[in-house]
Amino acid sequence: MTKTMKRWTLDTIAVGAPLNLTETAVPKPARGEVLVRVKAVSLNYRDKLVRETGMGLPIQFPFVPASDMAGVIEAVGDDVTRFAVGDRVISTFHPGWIDGKPLGDARTPPYKTLGGFYPGVLSEYISMPEGWFVSAPASLDYAEASTLPCAGLTAWFALVERGKIRPGDSVLVQGTGGVALFGLQIAAAQGAEVFVTSSGPEKLARTKALGAHHGIDRNKGDWVEEVYRLTNDQGIDHIIEIAGGPNFGQSLKAVAPHGRISVIGVLEGFDISGPAAPLLLKSPTVQGIGVGHRRSLEDFVRAVDSIGLKPVIDHRYALGEVPAAFDHLDRGPFGKIVIEL
Amino acid sequence: MTKTMKRWTLDTIAVGAPLNLTETAVPKPARGEVLVRVKAVSLNYRDKLVRETGMGLPIQFPFVPASDMAGVIEAVGDDVTRFAVGDRVISTFHPGWIDGKPLGDARTPPYKTLGGFYPGVLSEYISMPEGWFVSAPASLDYAEASTLPCAGLTAWFALVERGKIRPGDSVLVQGTGGVALFGLQIAAAQGAEVFVTSSGPEKLARTKALGAHHGIDRNKGDWVEEVYRLTNDQGIDHIIEIAGGPNFGQSLKAVAPHGRISVIGVLEGFDISGPAAPLLLKSPTVQGIGVGHRRSLEDFVRAVDSIGLKPVIDHRYALGEVPAAFDHLDRGPFGKIVIEL
Amino acid sequence: MTKTMKRWTLDTIAVGAPLNLTETAVPKPARGEVLVRVKAVSLNYRDKLVRETGMGLPIQFPFVPASDMAGVIEAVGDDVTRFAVGDRVISTFHPGWIDGKPLGDARTPPYKTLGGFYPGVLSEYISMPEGWFVSAPASLDYAEASTLPCAGLTAWFALVERGKIRPGDSVLVQGTGGVALFGLQIAAAQGAEVFVTSSGPEKLARTKALGAHHGIDRNKGDWVEEVYRLTNDQGIDHIIEIAGGPNFGQSLKAVAPHGRISVIGVLEGFDISGPAAPLLLKSPTVQGIGVGHRRSLEDFVRAVDSIGLKPVIDHRYALGEVPAAFDHLDRGPFGKIVIEL
Amino acid sequence: MTKTMKRWTLDTIAVGAPLNLTETAVPKPARGEVLVRVKAVSLNYRDKLVRETGMGLPIQFPFVPASDMAGVIEAVGDDVTRFAVGDRVISTFHPGWIDGKPLGDARTPPYKTLGGFYPGVLSEYISMPEGWFVSAPASLDYAEASTLPCAGLTAWFALVERGKIRPGDSVLVQGTGGVALFGLQIAAAQGAEVFVTSSGPEKLARTKALGAHHGIDRNKGDWVEEVYRLTNDQGIDHIIEIAGGPNFGQSLKAVAPHGRISVIGVLEGFDISGPAAPLLLKSPTVQGIGVGHRRSLEDFVRAVDSIGLKPVIDHRYALGEVPAAFDHLDRGPFGKIVIEL
Repeated sequence: MTKTMKRWTLDTIAVGAPLNLTETAVPKPARGEVLVRVKAVSLNYRDKLVRETGMGLPIQFPFVPASDMAGVIEAVGDDVTRFAVGDRVISTFHPGWIDGKPLGDARTPPYKTLGGFYPGVLSEYISMPEGWFVSAPASLDYAEASTLPCAGLTAWFALVERGKIRPGDSVLVQGTGGVALFGLQIAAAQGAEVFVTSSGPEKLARTKALGAHHGIDRNKGDWVEEVYRLTNDQGIDHIIEIAGGPNFGQSLKAVAPHGRISVIGVLEGFDISGPAAPLLLKSPTVQGIGVGHRRSLEDFVRAVDSIGLKPVIDHRYALGEVPAAFDHLDRGPFGKIVIEL
Repeated sequence: MTKTMKRWTLDTIAVGAPLNLTETAVPKPARGEVLVRVKAVSLNYRDKLVRETGMGLPIQFPFVPASDMAGVIEAVGDDVTRFAVGDRVISTFHPGWIDGKPLGDARTPPYKTLGGFYPGVLSEYISMPEGWFVSAPASLDYAEASTLPCAGLTAWFALVERGKIRPGDSVLVQGTGGVALFGLQIAAAQGAEVFVTSSGPEKLARTKALGAHHGIDRNKGDWVEEVYRLTNDQGIDHIIEIAGGPNFGQSLKAVAPHGRISVIGVLEGFDISGPAAPLLLKSPTVQGIGVGHRRSLEDFVRAVDSIGLKPVIDHRYALGEVPAAFDHLDRGPFGKIVIEL
Repeated sequence: MTKTMKRWTLDTIAVGAPLNLTETAVPKPARGEVLVRVKAVSLNYRDKLVRETGMGLPIQFPFVPASDMAGVIEAVGDDVTRFAVGDRVISTFHPGWIDGKPLGDARTPPYKTLGGFYPGVLSEYISMPEGWFVSAPASLDYAEASTLPCAGLTAWFALVERGKIRPGDSVLVQGTGGVALFGLQIAAAQGAEVFVTSSGPEKLARTKALGAHHGIDRNKGDWVEEVYRLTNDQGIDHIIEIAGGPNFGQSLKAVAPHGRISVIGVLEGFDISGPAAPLLLKSPTVQGIGVGHRRSLEDFVRAVDSIGLKPVIDHRYALGEVPAAFDHLDRGPFGKIVIEL
Repeated sequence: MTKTMKRWTLDTIAVGAPLNLTETAVPKPARGEVLVRVKAVSLNYRDKLVRETGMGLPIQFPFVPASDMAGVIEAVGDDVTRFAVGDRVISTFHPGWIDGKPLGDARTPPYKTLGGFYPGVLSEYISMPEGWFVSAPASLDYAEASTLPCAGLTAWFALVERGKIRPGDSVLVQGTGGVALFGLQIAAAQGAEVFVTSSGPEKLARTKALGAHHGIDRNKGDWVEEVYRLTNDQGIDHIIEIAGGPNFGQSLKAVAPHGRISVIGVLEGFDISGPAAPLLLKSPTVQGIGVGHRRSLEDFVRAVDSIGLKPVIDHRYALGEVPAAFDHLDRGPFGKIVIEL
């Protein structure tokens, strides 16, 4: 008798597209695959965009959403060498991007991800190639570990893999979403001086408890002027630009000469714009960050254990509460939303 | 009897501000200074902007314009160790920026340049600190050598110092101004595949004679589509973005995954704007290039001799023809405009 | 009826171990494999060491030697996507090392290579995973293309991928073997100033014909003093250290401050030694180069076409002349030895 | 009446050369100089070598030893802009090396240092160009601050400026001298996993109190095997090689593939030697570290305040106890030796 499992599926792409909890057979791991018992799934704002718009991706129905999970190896297919039954693993956001340069070309950028081009992970079991997983950090539970593949790695890739931040550098993160809080925690753990822009004193107080040194209330005047004041006009070495739109121009004003702006989000608009003068005269490096590769995720996992980083989870939902979890994305969580299975 | 010299001066900043050929005493080199007999001055589009707007710089009158020159050491002050009488030298655009990080802060970006913050060089003699000069390349005459400090170094800094281009890379330059043609020549000399966008077949034919592999006529359809076609969708590894404005967004579409866009000009607008999606997904590095430091100019001089690079001079004017030379800037020269003294 | 093919095999490892031309069935490409008709095999000094000592590798008999080949795809197995029948390909020296960090650990360094850990390529046909090959450059014939995977890539990886050489840099290569001549040609094509140390005026004359600027006869006094003389005491920016042993100490003396020494060979001893003072005071980067990864080989292939690099082949042997080709390795060829099939 | 001051001088270079406490006039700051009241001087093993051998430097008598100090600006000469009276400052080891590439050439490496090529600082007052100092960190007293210019910066330059260490990296330091303990503290503050090799359990226990994760007793068997055991054969990402001699070969065995060995000392011999195979196959970067430049010292000062690093001082001596302080260098202090004035 075939064993069955539950999973959440979509039969259509639309704003408010129904999420269905359905039943199907547990897959068998093919050659080179591992069968993973999913223990936690972390949602990203992108999962909402895929559900609502498809983001131009080739979606096949029934579609299982979500890209980030943690679980345990339940069975292994032939020729599997990286993992054994019982190993705790997390997924990779870009399967097949191992190290160095990404896949894709100029016309069709690299974007073959789980829960998008590939099926998602919001399922009791998944069977996928062993190379699509990495070992989970020993110091985190499954819910915490599930937040690393996209939000955590994005912050790590921006600040450490690309940004090479150092003790004493100034780092500014915008808002209190998942990537921003990971950025805050990674920067603070490396001895950087951390600035957070957010709305309202309550959220800023919570970021200080997480290690931020300076909170800037976006409701009170020009945040760039406040940066100048706090840094004695030196500006910020590394900015995690999350808003996009004209806020990008503000980041160009706030950045230090030869500093870095990592563009990771577009909450305020799908375009970026800003003045050319500070870009030319201060010569900052501006780089979009589209998550990162497997080797860097392995480095990050090692660092999480080493520095004792604990991801910030706003709320943990049960498997039956997925629609409520998706609704929570709209309200702007403080950190991450996780579904425990 | 004091010896006198001629120089060009401005008494006011305005569109059409009069350029006056005036006479003054030849300066004496102070301690640490060298007196240089100026043999050639190269004009940049920026010299026009300074004449017309002052660019927010603290201009003192009578103001001598222009930043780039080549000449010969005529006398040395006390404690001078880097140069001797008879040495051929060129100026540095950012005096005092030797290597590594530039001067300046986030609020007031680094922009202390000759012919702007400091006096200019359009004068028969100048006396300045010895550290403000580097040796001229042996393989160039004075007119050619005078084109290196700003236009030449900008292209070198973008492609080599920052961009680290390699044989086989694809490089695209926009237009046929001074920086673009230096970029073309440097890239071709390193074995890169060079693309030029320009208007009309005649200019494109001239760029091919200089070593460009592909010419794209901006008057004939979308240049990005033509890039896709010519590169089999791979896109361009290094783009020298000269236009600014919405053309920046086109460059984001044309760049290869993990490529680089060096923003060096703002001919089409003082803002830049473009779509966030290719920035996020292709993760290119975007960097403004504000010329470069003295160590890099020394490297470039060495390379000019090594690869036999001959700067492209559109027209050589005599000292008395400076107003005509400035007018030529408005018409968009093919390469550089030089005044010989 | 099964088709058969010829190949060279060893049944034992020893100095003078017999090379046998044997017959066996042409393999069938398994899932993910391509069957390649081998058209040329290039020998490396390492192939001699493997034949004589095994180099500590797990050799299985009958053992097919050699790692570097060029050929044409004859058939493809299921699920092959990178290549089609008729494509011209070359092998990769380290199968599985795609980009970024290599495989292996500190105790057991990465050294899983063709013609060593894996079977070799001195065979009329080989069937291997498609990921083990890259496209051959269009501008080379098979014999020339077969020299790229080990000798060519080693020089490219040292000078370009790691060394990031630039026009005007000084580059010194030691001797006239395969890697040295590739280093010479790559450096010259990038506008570097190339120095060669070798024995006797005849070989030095031949290197000048290939683009070297300075030849230093190792039989005539201290080569380091000659470097000082030729560089006005500046020293060499990039040294390709091929001899090893105490010659490494000479390279430490010859290198420029903040220069680079790429250690690629051990012709004069399996240890390296030298004085600590120049290492500390000049702070050069010393890096061993163990060939390179597949992404870099793809870059190199692109560059070969772009700069028109023609590998130097000392002699082309026929398939029946393999023992003579191995003997030639002992005599120190000028460039590469290739067997054409 | 001219004010006088005390200073320690040598009239000869020899093992056991007499150190004399002499009196002389307090200097007046020339144009561009600052007069600094010296509050603390830190000794380095190098000061002993200079006293005993001169290290080939052009010593002028009476010679004031020592390079590293902290103090307060007492007066400023004309044209001084970087500092004002009352500012707390520390010295730079290589005056004039601001950023980027060092001074010097291949034959005569860069080594123009205080207490060597230039006069030293073991004096109640010193007057030197303002550019030779940087601001002291606010969080350290003078004795602590005086340890940064040579020992502290060497560790920072090796691990951070050059090594770009990251959280989760493994770092190994050899022994418990000044550079080793700075390396330990910097690495631990960045979330690295720190290994220390030393002799005897007592010193190792003290390093664990400073943040080291693993202590390896060099008296108990092969330290490389212990590294393999502790890292599950992965090896060490960054090794601070302090011993030199054949210990360098051990470091080549212990280093991880693509790791880094920073050679900073020669306690066990003025040569380095080791096997070529791990250098070739693991492709580590080996770099000698000759302290570092002023910009990096400024970065380090900022980091010291940011991470709260407290330098380890073995013993603080009074100005009259300088001979005893020099004797202490021979016995191998745990951390630094400082003279307070």
